[in-house]
Amino acid sequence: MNAARPVAVARRLTALRTDLAALDLDGLVVTHLPNLRYLTGFSGTAGAAVVSGSRCRLVIDFRYETTARALVADLPSDLIEVHLVERTYDDALVDVLRGIGSGKIGIEASSMTVGRFNRLTSALQKPESARGSALLVPTERVVERRRAVKDSSEIDILREAGRRLSEMARRVPGMVREGRTELDIAADIDSAIRQAGFERPAFETIVAGGENGAKPHARPGKRQLRVGDWVVLDFGGIYDGYCVDLTRTLPVGAAGSELSRVASAVLEAHDAAIEAVRPGARPSEIDAAARQVLASHGLADAFGHGTGHGLGLEVHEDPRISKLPGALPDEPVVPGMVFTIEPGAYLPGLGGVRIEDDVLVVESGCEVLTDVPIGF
Amino acid sequence: MNAARPVAVARRLTALRTDLAALDLDGLVVTHLPNLRYLTGFSGTAGAAVVSGSRCRLVIDFRYETTARALVADLPSDLIEVHLVERTYDDALVDVLRGIGSGKIGIEASSMTVGRFNRLTSALQKPESARGSALLVPTERVVERRRAVKDSSEIDILREAGRRLSEMARRVPGMVREGRTELDIAADIDSAIRQAGFERPAFETIVAGGENGAKPHARPGKRQLRVGDWVVLDFGGIYDGYCVDLTRTLPVGAAGSELSRVASAVLEAHDAAIEAVRPGARPSEIDAAARQVLASHGLADAFGHGTGHGLGLEVHEDPRISKLPGALPDEPVVPGMVFTIEPGAYLPGLGGVRIEDDVLVVESGCEVLTDVPIGF
Repeated sequence: MNAARPVAVARRLTALRTDLAALDLDGLVVTHLPNLRYLTGFSGTAGAAVVSGSRCRLVIDFRYETTARALVADLPSDLIEVHLVERTYDDALVDVLRGIGSGKIGIEASSMTVGRFNRLTSALQKPESARGSALLVPTERVVERRRAVKDSSEIDILREAGRRLSEMARRVPGMVREGRTELDIAADIDSAIRQAGFERPAFETIVAGGENGAKPHARPGKRQLRVGDWVVLDFGGIYDGYCVDLTRTLPVGAAGSELSRVASAVLEAHDAAIEAVRPGARPSEIDAAARQVLASHGLADAFGHGTGHGLGLEVHEDPRISKLPGALPDEPVVPGMVFTIEPGAYLPGLGGVRIEDDVLVVESGCEVLTDVPIGF
Repeated sequence: MNAARPVAVARRLTALRTDLAALDLDGLVVTHLPNLRYLTGFSGTAGAAVVSGSRCRLVIDFRYETTARALVADLPSDLIEVHLVERTYDDALVDVLRGIGSGKIGIEASSMTVGRFNRLTSALQKPESARGSALLVPTERVVERRRAVKDSSEIDILREAGRRLSEMARRVPGMVREGRTELDIAADIDSAIRQAGFERPAFETIVAGGENGAKPHARPGKRQLRVGDWVVLDFGGIYDGYCVDLTRTLPVGAAGSELSRVASAVLEAHDAAIEAVRPGARPSEIDAAARQVLASHGLADAFGHGTGHGLGLEVHEDPRISKLPGALPDEPVVPGMVFTIEPGAYLPGLGGVRIEDDVLVVESGCEVLTDVPIGF
């Protein structure tokens, strides 16, 4: 994390305490790793935290002891304490929770497994603490809701990440040539992502040529590009922990065929959705802007996914820009939110087109963080 | 998956039904994606299956419809039916479970979240089905236990993966030179892994020079290698879905210093643990073989992780070769198990050494799947 970390960590923990009080909770067990990173700066592949009262205990295992102690030493004193796992994470969490005594402690229901919840609950019910035992209560999206609105240090990182991804993406059309395989091109893209200063690709790069383009999440394979193909290229990078994501669909050789018409319609839908992004717009409205354009071109059934997803420490996070928000409320977007706009159309047997850029909601409307020619 | 898939899928589903009967369960909701891939061959980033009676319903969303239908068409008829998600996975699972009616249906407690479990349970309790409703029951390691013992097609894949990783690893010493950064070398390794025919690295490649080697899970950074450093290089690849994993620790320039002595001790521990691998050995015994050697060199406290972990569709799976099996029983290893042997010693401020190979348990003892010079 960058130099803003100690300030950001202190501010985020304070915000969490406010949120917990509003939910009538005495604490929260943080197990979703991106939430853990957001709140503490710790970015290992395992770990947890227990926030209660003025204390935040970072629970980590031996592998991360050196890293975690260095991280905590950089923070204001007592902001975070390190609790080392001796046997298992479950045992360590029970130790920390027993230390808290009685109280209503939230758990992250979309991250904690049924197995862990049952083990913690049954261990806490054993009468080993004279101070009473914590009651674990499912919560949803407590930290995620805060994470959806980026602070200025996060916006700086995402702007820089968008700039770097755009610069790198300008080299992609040169990689797309007749006879090359999807895997060849994916390897070149991944290498270019690292050369551009990203820690690594944000997800498995998609290169889907010809009929493979009809699968929105195709994996690159040994298919060779042919003249007349359209190729979906979807890739992203992680920069200082934050994800950006871009898709272009390019023709191989002379663009012809049915898919040229589809590509124009998808571009029109993409532009309409970006036009709809402004503070106060509901995700369903932004989604509808894209969907209506595609429907007007007879492509309503060809667009089966949402128009976009939030970007941040995760490559898919809140908000979801969709007509079907599922369990999520359709809350209006606000300045500081960063998400993709990525309508597509998929025609089985023929191919597909998707065009994706990343946007930041600002007071005046929308700032597009990626800047790459459309390519057709 | 390779040509053995239809046979393997049929056999694995039959074995699962045997296991469910032994557990007095009428079905299982499979949500852990590697288990889903093992049982059905489906390898998307989302999906689930409900196995009950003679039926297996593969629940997937729009993105994977083309892939899933093609996969099922290759199987004997009616072995697996595709159930497309219309709104959310939770809704789709409730639909399928309502279709089953009453019964005791297992869920995978180490994968299913508390949130999903509560949503499914409460939806099933609504009196919308005249046939009675399924009771969801937590289970642990039902499919994982089968996955720990590889069948012949899996062993073929893992042998080939070990051979390819070994061949690629012979190029790594040439990448390790004074002045290069950890990130430079990690990028070269990742590129070589793909060139060797792997789908992608099996995890984030570790290159940890000098004092960074003291962190068992260091991330590569901008530190430049210096003469006298020892560098931990830990990398792996996914081949046809299966993971292999290798570590070497190499000196930069002339090997000297305290770490030469440590490296010899770790190598001795590595060899002793491999020597201990044979059918009937308990994981704790294999672990102790390595640990005792390190203790005899005064390095007991420097080795804080387990000696190894299973390899397969996941890079960390059963069995765990550890003195602290946690929640897992210390069951003897059997032919067909594949796991790493990777003792290490970590000295904060100074550096670390880890040496890792992959082994297959065979009737006569142990076959080492990786074959790379130790390098010092």
